[in-house]
Amino acid sequence: MSKQMIKKDFPLTNEELRLQETLFHTANGYIGVRGNFEEGYPMDYISSRGQYINGVYDVAEMKQAEQLYGFPNKKEVILNVADTQSVHLYLDGEEVTAFSQGVREMCRVLDMEKGTASRQFIWKNEQGKEVTVSYRRMTSFVLLPLFTIEIKITSHDFEGTLSIVSEHHGTAHNFVNPDDPRMAAETEDYLSVAETIYEEEQAVSKITAVTKTSNLAVQTLVFHEASPQLELGAVEESESISVVYDGQIKSGETASIIKYSLFIDSRRYELEKAGADLLAKVREKTLMEWYRVQEEYLQKFWQRAELSVGGDPLLNESLNYSLYSLIQSAGKDGISNIAAKGLSGEGYEGHYFWDTEIYMMPFFTLTYPEIASKLIEFRYMILDKARENARTLGHKQGALFPWRTISGTESSGYYPSGTAQYHINSDIAYSIIQYYHATGDIDCLLNYGGEILIETSRLWLDVGHYEGTRFVLNCMTGPDEYTCVVNNNYYTNQSVQYQLRWLVKLYPLLKEKNALFIEQLGVTDEEMTAYQAAADAMYLPYSDELQIHAQDDSFLEKPILPIEELPKEKFPLLLHYHPLYLYRHQVCKQADLVLAYFLHDQAFDEEALKRGYAYYEKRTTHDSSLSSCIFSIVANQIGEVEKAYHYFDESSKIDITNSHHNTQDGIHAANMGGTYLGLVFGFAGLRIREDFLELTPRLPEKWSNCHFSVMYQGSLLHITIDKERICLSLEEGAAVDVTVYGQQGIVSSENEWEIPYRKEQ
Amino acid sequence: MSKQMIKKDFPLTNEELRLQETLFHTANGYIGVRGNFEEGYPMDYISSRGQYINGVYDVAEMKQAEQLYGFPNKKEVILNVADTQSVHLYLDGEEVTAFSQGVREMCRVLDMEKGTASRQFIWKNEQGKEVTVSYRRMTSFVLLPLFTIEIKITSHDFEGTLSIVSEHHGTAHNFVNPDDPRMAAETEDYLSVAETIYEEEQAVSKITAVTKTSNLAVQTLVFHEASPQLELGAVEESESISVVYDGQIKSGETASIIKYSLFIDSRRYELEKAGADLLAKVREKTLMEWYRVQEEYLQKFWQRAELSVGGDPLLNESLNYSLYSLIQSAGKDGISNIAAKGLSGEGYEGHYFWDTEIYMMPFFTLTYPEIASKLIEFRYMILDKARENARTLGHKQGALFPWRTISGTESSGYYPSGTAQYHINSDIAYSIIQYYHATGDIDCLLNYGGEILIETSRLWLDVGHYEGTRFVLNCMTGPDEYTCVVNNNYYTNQSVQYQLRWLVKLYPLLKEKNALFIEQLGVTDEEMTAYQAAADAMYLPYSDELQIHAQDDSFLEKPILPIEELPKEKFPLLLHYHPLYLYRHQVCKQADLVLAYFLHDQAFDEEALKRGYAYYEKRTTHDSSLSSCIFSIVANQIGEVEKAYHYFDESSKIDITNSHHNTQDGIHAANMGGTYLGLVFGFAGLRIREDFLELTPRLPEKWSNCHFSVMYQGSLLHITIDKERICLSLEEGAAVDVTVYGQQGIVSSENEWEIPYRKEQ
Repeated sequence: MSKQMIKKDFPLTNEELRLQETLFHTANGYIGVRGNFEEGYPMDYISSRGQYINGVYDVAEMKQAEQLYGFPNKKEVILNVADTQSVHLYLDGEEVTAFSQGVREMCRVLDMEKGTASRQFIWKNEQGKEVTVSYRRMTSFVLLPLFTIEIKITSHDFEGTLSIVSEHHGTAHNFVNPDDPRMAAETEDYLSVAETIYEEEQAVSKITAVTKTSNLAVQTLVFHEASPQLELGAVEESESISVVYDGQIKSGETASIIKYSLFIDSRRYELEKAGADLLAKVREKTLMEWYRVQEEYLQKFWQRAELSVGGDPLLNESLNYSLYSLIQSAGKDGISNIAAKGLSGEGYEGHYFWDTEIYMMPFFTLTYPEIASKLIEFRYMILDKARENARTLGHKQGALFPWRTISGTESSGYYPSGTAQYHINSDIAYSIIQYYHATGDIDCLLNYGGEILIETSRLWLDVGHYEGTRFVLNCMTGPDEYTCVVNNNYYTNQSVQYQLRWLVKLYPLLKEKNALFIEQLGVTDEEMTAYQAAADAMYLPYSDELQIHAQDDSFLEKPILPIEELPKEKFPLLLHYHPLYLYRHQVCKQADLVLAYFLHDQAFDEEALKRGYAYYEKRTTHDSSLSSCIFSIVANQIGEVEKAYHYFDESSKIDITNSHHNTQDGIHAANMGGTYLGLVFGFAGLRIREDFLELTPRLPEKWSNCHFSVMYQGSLLHITIDKERICLSLEEGAAVDVTVYGQQGIVSSENEWEIPYRKEQ
Repeated sequence: MSKQMIKKDFPLTNEELRLQETLFHTANGYIGVRGNFEEGYPMDYISSRGQYINGVYDVAEMKQAEQLYGFPNKKEVILNVADTQSVHLYLDGEEVTAFSQGVREMCRVLDMEKGTASRQFIWKNEQGKEVTVSYRRMTSFVLLPLFTIEIKITSHDFEGTLSIVSEHHGTAHNFVNPDDPRMAAETEDYLSVAETIYEEEQAVSKITAVTKTSNLAVQTLVFHEASPQLELGAVEESESISVVYDGQIKSGETASIIKYSLFIDSRRYELEKAGADLLAKVREKTLMEWYRVQEEYLQKFWQRAELSVGGDPLLNESLNYSLYSLIQSAGKDGISNIAAKGLSGEGYEGHYFWDTEIYMMPFFTLTYPEIASKLIEFRYMILDKARENARTLGHKQGALFPWRTISGTESSGYYPSGTAQYHINSDIAYSIIQYYHATGDIDCLLNYGGEILIETSRLWLDVGHYEGTRFVLNCMTGPDEYTCVVNNNYYTNQSVQYQLRWLVKLYPLLKEKNALFIEQLGVTDEEMTAYQAAADAMYLPYSDELQIHAQDDSFLEKPILPIEELPKEKFPLLLHYHPLYLYRHQVCKQADLVLAYFLHDQAFDEEALKRGYAYYEKRTTHDSSLSSCIFSIVANQIGEVEKAYHYFDESSKIDITNSHHNTQDGIHAANMGGTYLGLVFGFAGLRIREDFLELTPRLPEKWSNCHFSVMYQGSLLHITIDKERICLSLEEGAAVDVTVYGQQGIVSSENEWEIPYRKEQ
């Protein structure tokens, strides 16, 4: 089954094009290029023409209406670094664009096996002569700074001059939308050109730009390869560089041009040296060879990440798109992470959130643990800034990770649903513990994860206190952003309990391995006793009256907002109600306690969980794209498979159907991870335990089967579930302990394991 | 005893001068002029050279770091409207300033009986020749737009030319201090000159300036009267106008100039007509006559407001200064109010807060009820905007007054300690009810107060809800700004109960008087039943364990911030701790429950009150200037007179000693009112009851006696307390029912009432 997303005969409305700019973006975790038309758009179209480098940011003013102590007044923002996408084609002097009259057979394809995005149309001039124009773009997974555009013009019956003007702008502007709190409200000239060079000998244009505040530099290098009909003509050089290729094209002939762009930044490269080296490297291979290694990379990727269901082709398309988006989005170098919008747009200003650890890491942990470990390394890199952040917040010890950031500085302007979400600490801890269970990667624990566990745990001990015999955590915000700054958010308290308990369990190992940081940080056995005590005394609010867990100390006492009675146009509520109004009511933007049901499933008995699910489901608007996938997973936990399917279906198509109406600003990367979670942790019921993998498969009526692979402790396991049996086989590595429906088994290279599917659970 | 504040031989440091600019300001509730030196300051001095018109504002951008729904992004700001203070003197070409070498016998006097501020020094030139220069300023209480400066130059032995340059700038800039969250962080050109005219015939300069956004216009008119030695010379006219007077001065002679300024604004005046009329009016009297009517006005004022204690002269100075500041600050026209800094500076951007109703109104209610009624009229004027504000906050009915405003628009940028302080609604209601009890002014109730009571009560019913049998009020902030957005703030709940009960009691009267608004608003008897029920069911949190009332649902469960252990430089805490840190701890910025103890004294039994006072006292930093006076009053309630004296002393001297280090930005007007409260409601133990006045006098050791007058139900009562007896006499009006130490009595013109002072209570 080929993994393609195809768009044909689409309307060229501005709205549709902005959406496609996102959907057809190409990225590799280092650079990202929005799927803009090379030739541009009509004057009155709004486009976010963007090319990004993960982790390349500048610092913007963030004025506070009232500047209270500790409120950040600067924020990091991802930069739209350059524009090397622009190429204009002229046939007999007439510009060829997708908007020209008579254009037909428009088609756009994202090929997720080849790792390219292509676009094609047939163009006709006034004389009725036609050419086919095709564009193919690649952002290389193998050579991360490389982005290519290949353009072919095939004449059906046109004969005449062909002229190609290719532009290279070394700076660009961030997109502005003052009406949406989730987008930047104003633009600044973050980047300015420091040097523009056109090296005639190599026909390479090179522009270096520097940021205003963050002291970063970005260099873009562009060169072209043209088909024999075309000759390099004029080169115009100012702040930008444009080159012209001219030639003649005959009926039946194909002319082509390849535009190579290289993006490098001063966080990773010594610019001068790297530029020359990379140019040489690019030229070692032809474009066809670069296409081939791209395909090889993705072959390996899909081998590990393959995830499919039988009986639901549309779903497979969105599943593939989700996984492909994740590999496109993830920083793989330890100094970058996964932005909320990946590298597909500027929504949420390119910030990294808890989305990474709770929604996206599990996919990498189970398929590409080497990337997961880099994501942990990133958190370690910003640990010092997290320590500073904790001091700003008044804490005497420990570290508090920033709610939104690029290089570690808290960039959240509204703390009640930002900085106050302390749970980001336990989310990161959770992902480290899960990663360790899934991989047994002791080095990552010794070098990065362990110190993070210690420092975040110290924060918990500082911020919490004993109220009688209970350990309580006050004045913080859980995942639900419609309920802010509360006492004893259940999710947070339970996640902290989990983190503290695991730290205590892992401590002897860390000590035995003589982890450097244990000594450096002055960690003591007494400290562990304090963690154990706090974990054991952790207060987990429960309503005896309703017999459900309480989202926090006061949630259940608030009046219920009758969300089913509100008109559709009032959603998402955050755009129509003052936060105080929302906070005053029982209404959830997203899974909060329900997320705890998933992450800490062993802590709940099934009946309490069923009651709680029913209760919170009625009060949740899913205004956040982080919600439906979790509700799907927990619906599976309580055996409501068809409900699970409904949520999963919703979640898996958010971007493809633009159901949240903002995919034009970028993909919902966390939800992409959530789609993976929904299938693997939801329908397959997978859980990563310390010594084994657990599966509790359930398939919705519509599906005939589903299959996927996971890495566990270095072994690659292939899992197929159909309505007759569950089949587990080992593709690589040592034998793995697994339980299916609670039944223990071992999967080894000699021993495939097959057990019957349970229809009723 | 003369009422003067005198400064002699003061150091001319910048800090001291900025402070004096505030302390020696002159104002009349309509205009305010800071006590700037006419001749200016050395170049490197920072000065807030300001002249203000109460209620004249412009609209400034207030960018929100994250623009959530309903967050205001504009705010009203008081305008520094013009500069008519500048006058330069030259003797033989040398400028005469307070900073010249050899200046001696500097003296500055605020005369609170004459209503003038004067300044004097002896100046010496290089030849050793001396003159005395004196300045006298008046902001007229009788002709509100009038401000005068009289300058006299008396030669001791100087002979030569005298030249006077007087400037008239029709616009000015607001003061900027980016480091203080309580001050504006940036300036804008709010005002621009629309017209500059110099009318030669009348020798009047007239400048009209218009605001950028609020569509207001301000006109300033200036003319001079000079002594015979001086002749009008050059007039320079551009955006500003300056006039020169030249002449000769001989040994022993005095030359003088009087500068008359008139300030009018388009909110109150039709500018063209008013300007001419007012000029004529000013000229009807000589300056001496204007001085005389000023003194007469103040004579009447002090007759009613007189407040003095025996045995504490320093205290009397600050008492007088407090009361004088109140009459200087209060808007008297129903379209302006009392800014937090009066008209003495730009702190808090000239906004009106609850300070008016809770801290300042009682003084006016009991001494100048006609001003109190105008303050209620102001709230009525902005009632429609309060209704709009309630809709923004999601409320289906009622009105929510803005936390900070000038013309009614919510100008609070940080809602947790701003808009969320819903208690401003019940504070306004409280002041209306108290005003009605003290005055019996039924017209005010029918025309203004009643509708406010109804609309604010409707808000309470909308925002509150029943939790079982309790009526609760969630997600709002009480007076204490270190504990924000909580459930069931005791102070708020009790104030709402008080308001609802009184509305229900007053309703038959309103109905009987056939108040128009009752019908227009569709008020029903059922609505009253709902108010009564909510009031009766009102939840008032109480800790059985501690046997004290709880500030809110969670306050007592928080860890205690050990404020006594914190270093002095950490105060005020708001400048050194993140709000989340403060909110997480038991720590109060100011009286909160303790304010309820005062306002609702009848609701508490003495033992609970004693325990509560002790408890909250330990947790209060008094970082707000609204705190000490209330702690003083309640200390009296529990019989701790010396403690009361300590707080009272602290409170009464805040501005005079600049103990909060920000009097340079303006007086603490609310604390001025609090000083009055501290004496009259504290030591004299006065309470305004529906049918009688209550007194429970207690004097601290240091004082031999105290006396003051109050208006009650139209009667003027004079009260003298010494350590032998309490003596009450009627100065004006009908007999008054009074209780002293709970003992009932009647004071009438025939019947002075004298009862023994109780040493131990």
